[in-house]
Amino acid sequence: MPRTSIATVCLSGTLEDRLDAAGAAGFDAVEIFENDLLASALPPERIRERAAGLGLTIDLYQPFRDAEGAPAARFASVRRRMRAKLELMERLGADTILVCSSVAPDTVDDDDLAAGQLRQLAQMAAEHGKRIAYEALAWGRHVSTWEHSWEIVRRADHPALGLCLDSFHVLSRSAALEGIARLPGDRIFFLQLADAPRLGMDVLQWSRHHRLFPLQGGLDLVGFTAAVLATGYTGPLSLEVFNDVFRQADPHRTAVDARRSLIALEDAIGHTLTPAAELTGVAFAELGVDPESGPRLETLLGALGFTHVGQHRSKPVQLWEQGDARILLNSGEPLAEGSAAIRAFALESADPERSARRAGELLARPLPRRRRRSEAHLTAVAAPDGTEVFFCRRAPVWREDFLPTGEPPTPSTGITGIDHLSLAQPFDRYDEAALFYRTVLGMADDEAGEFAAPFGLIRTLAIRNADRRVRIALSVPVLRRGDWAPAVPHPQHLTLATDDLARTAAALAAAGVPVLRIPENYYDDLDARTTLVPQLRAFVRATGVMYDEDAHGQYLQLFTPVLGSRVFVEVAQRVGGYRGYGFANDPVRMAAHRAQRLAGAAPAR
Amino acid sequence: MPRTSIATVCLSGTLEDRLDAAGAAGFDAVEIFENDLLASALPPERIRERAAGLGLTIDLYQPFRDAEGAPAARFASVRRRMRAKLELMERLGADTILVCSSVAPDTVDDDDLAAGQLRQLAQMAAEHGKRIAYEALAWGRHVSTWEHSWEIVRRADHPALGLCLDSFHVLSRSAALEGIARLPGDRIFFLQLADAPRLGMDVLQWSRHHRLFPLQGGLDLVGFTAAVLATGYTGPLSLEVFNDVFRQADPHRTAVDARRSLIALEDAIGHTLTPAAELTGVAFAELGVDPESGPRLETLLGALGFTHVGQHRSKPVQLWEQGDARILLNSGEPLAEGSAAIRAFALESADPERSARRAGELLARPLPRRRRRSEAHLTAVAAPDGTEVFFCRRAPVWREDFLPTGEPPTPSTGITGIDHLSLAQPFDRYDEAALFYRTVLGMADDEAGEFAAPFGLIRTLAIRNADRRVRIALSVPVLRRGDWAPAVPHPQHLTLATDDLARTAAALAAAGVPVLRIPENYYDDLDARTTLVPQLRAFVRATGVMYDEDAHGQYLQLFTPVLGSRVFVEVAQRVGGYRGYGFANDPVRMAAHRAQRLAGAAPAR
Repeated sequence: MPRTSIATVCLSGTLEDRLDAAGAAGFDAVEIFENDLLASALPPERIRERAAGLGLTIDLYQPFRDAEGAPAARFASVRRRMRAKLELMERLGADTILVCSSVAPDTVDDDDLAAGQLRQLAQMAAEHGKRIAYEALAWGRHVSTWEHSWEIVRRADHPALGLCLDSFHVLSRSAALEGIARLPGDRIFFLQLADAPRLGMDVLQWSRHHRLFPLQGGLDLVGFTAAVLATGYTGPLSLEVFNDVFRQADPHRTAVDARRSLIALEDAIGHTLTPAAELTGVAFAELGVDPESGPRLETLLGALGFTHVGQHRSKPVQLWEQGDARILLNSGEPLAEGSAAIRAFALESADPERSARRAGELLARPLPRRRRRSEAHLTAVAAPDGTEVFFCRRAPVWREDFLPTGEPPTPSTGITGIDHLSLAQPFDRYDEAALFYRTVLGMADDEAGEFAAPFGLIRTLAIRNADRRVRIALSVPVLRRGDWAPAVPHPQHLTLATDDLARTAAALAAAGVPVLRIPENYYDDLDARTTLVPQLRAFVRATGVMYDEDAHGQYLQLFTPVLGSRVFVEVAQRVGGYRGYGFANDPVRMAAHRAQRLAGAAPAR
Repeated sequence: MPRTSIATVCLSGTLEDRLDAAGAAGFDAVEIFENDLLASALPPERIRERAAGLGLTIDLYQPFRDAEGAPAARFASVRRRMRAKLELMERLGADTILVCSSVAPDTVDDDDLAAGQLRQLAQMAAEHGKRIAYEALAWGRHVSTWEHSWEIVRRADHPALGLCLDSFHVLSRSAALEGIARLPGDRIFFLQLADAPRLGMDVLQWSRHHRLFPLQGGLDLVGFTAAVLATGYTGPLSLEVFNDVFRQADPHRTAVDARRSLIALEDAIGHTLTPAAELTGVAFAELGVDPESGPRLETLLGALGFTHVGQHRSKPVQLWEQGDARILLNSGEPLAEGSAAIRAFALESADPERSARRAGELLARPLPRRRRRSEAHLTAVAAPDGTEVFFCRRAPVWREDFLPTGEPPTPSTGITGIDHLSLAQPFDRYDEAALFYRTVLGMADDEAGEFAAPFGLIRTLAIRNADRRVRIALSVPVLRRGDWAPAVPHPQHLTLATDDLARTAAALAAAGVPVLRIPENYYDDLDARTTLVPQLRAFVRATGVMYDEDAHGQYLQLFTPVLGSRVFVEVAQRVGGYRGYGFANDPVRMAAHRAQRLAGAAPAR
């Protein structure tokens, strides 16, 4: 396994915070970003000691700017600067310095001059027992491709001068990867990895604000890294990610996310981990309830045809069931400020032990086994936001924890199972959550989007397993909410699948359970832009159903009000092969939830 | 004066919130954005009544998409959709609908087809007494320039069909403005205004996330609007701004900011406001102090050679003075959570009454006159974050409010005045603050930037008056801070000018007043990258001075620790004609402040 490394610039806080976080996450090495060192009160020797105490070597010092192609008059100051940095590196215990291609306006466009100057600098480095890794910035003034940087390294021909390859700089220019695999591996001195979403923007701004850890974006990190490893490169896989969110988030959490991305990347290249076990469905979802939401959920589930079939042997947890949908209502621990409403969910796995092993290999925090009888059958890990993810067999061994209530089954209202879980995420953990669910569960991205909700933009990503029996929709506001926008944490919700929404809605109406009122304006627009058959048109308007369609089919969705402070239930019917999640309706649905809350808080005007 | 209008999409909240905010800010009209209407539980008639009750007409309903160039089979559904929207507009009391150029992949590239279809739709509109404003989206499939949209309107030749011009769509393509002024004004049915920073990115993303109100960005709104008005256009100036921050901020505040931008725009075109009076300097800065920061500031000011010359007649406010620097320490009202440390500052104006009149015309909230004797001489308005901005004459009449203490003057330590005020801004109010200070004070942008601070990116903008005697530096985090990053609200600071930093520093040292310790690593790097004369080099390192230089001169800066929770003082010497603010040193300075706080909070390790 290659060594893993992270640049201090990926993380937030003081240099000490960053080193501590990298060490705790299990990295082997760090790149020290110069600005982070300058801002530290620790002398270089102390930084070295601190890193060593954390099990970290300092594998790179970076960046050294505007070195090659300098006019002769300026090159003297480049040499002086390099000498100072080489002395610093001795104190720091770093062997390699990154020289990135010049951007200064006075840079001379002359490869021989650049090669000659880099050769001089490499000779200086060699005299200090150090070496130089030369990198083409995608926005370098004259040198902006790896091919060009390699040509200059080749011409300079000095053993202390090699290449630094950075996946972002290479892949952001859509360079072909074939040539990379043919490079001599011992001339690649350093490998920096960053992913990024595909954004149509100036490459410098793209690079400085929107980089992501591998497998969080849209670049071909797998192909790139495999190509570099094919050269025989033996240095570390080192992350260099400039990201506005990571820069201000808890570095301990970010460092774990970062290291997970490298573990997943290696797995994607070489199948190094326990393979993901096949998932066959959602065994249950567990909602945390409070004195307000608990009774309302019980009434709702009863009206939907769920039966309260079991009571936990030792905890205030109810098991409700209808069809393949099982819901636990947990009134045991009060919902903490800022915590999620869907506290846990269980996935049916062809091999729960294997699922849990893979999760552990991907740094998922294991949770203490909570249920006495089923210890062998129910393993759990924590998702980035603390949600408990259980793995269990299809045979519901975990039900042994519940004493049967003996309540008779209720007639079905059409509910067949859990369609999907909508997990609103904390602002700082969205990209981590996406990577976590994708890699730990072996799921694939299904649909990504962004929509304008009444109180700000919302980003969404749905992921699913191969046969779409497990679907998870993640969402996050584009900006962290302030005082004006309500409802932080955002409500989460559970979508129940029905094969007959009319029947399910009728059952709710018969039980006097209110559903969310959808504005007439929505239906007027729906009528203007679609040609639904008259019965369907009348049904959706009369019932408060929202409608969506795609190339494969139709989607009918009905919502409850927000129950308590942060959970609601959707009942949805997929007609034909509709593949989406109804995201297009979310802004109107959110406004309706807002109106319902205001109406509940004050008498209607 | 043209009527002023704002699109509901500029604001946050429910449609009701948005209408209320637009009405309260004094707009004449609104554009109803379709999604905002769909999400509202109010029927169109009620929306119309509510708007009317707020003094608002509904001047536009928008957008109607993918109308022209539709294949024949689809055009029937376009007509059906248009009919429904025309009926809606009757209920809503809106006369004009915006049709934006088609983006659908099946759109036919045929100007005659497009013109014919728009003519049909215009005829339908005319039959309802409505009209259509056709707009070229910058990313339209076949029609993406105003010239092209005009050509189609001309060919369609129907009295109910005219142009909608949108400054963003025109200026983002850098179109020349000459042709616009030659358009027949009665064929321009609607004018939408949005500014934007110059960003190198995909125009669709740029438009959807980063638009700003006029004069907040880098587009030529003055030239564009003047050109449109020159045609004889008599419709409203209407704002259509998609901005991630505004979408989630208090709409009442945003609406005031929005209307201020139109008032300032009209002034920039036609000198409609009281002209800004010449500013000649900062008369005083007033710091809110608490039991911790108060004594420390008194000690500091004493050591810097300030004299406590006056005590307010009725309030716990001290006046300290040295040279032209005057500082008030106000221990009267406790500092509210989240409030700024620099509670007020006073600017010397050639005509304070005129300054205040202009501020009022620009919707600055007037403040009650606080000081009894000087009522005629000291007027104040509130800046967007609540900071009180006073205007006064150079003759310090306001000092009559202070009883002389009789304390003898202290020997000067070199302090000559207040160099600049650094006003960290609340996250939601940054662009508003920039526009406020620029337009109310008649100041110009000086230097804008972004830097990576230890706990996240920071954006900065300095503005100044003509002769640089009044300088204000604004800053804001790029993302709203969460739990990890410390220090919200960010400390603000006051920079005192000295003509001899060595003398000032010696005075502090003699008085035993600590200054902020700057890391040795910073000086090692400074030595590596500059060639300061040896005495200066030794001085800055020994004294804790930070250094910057530009093409005009040098800047030496010395900082106190953060005093109390949110204010510190900088003492700076400009050598030669240095024009900057030392922003490049801010990350190291911030880390040093962080280290100082941690050292104060816990014993050193």
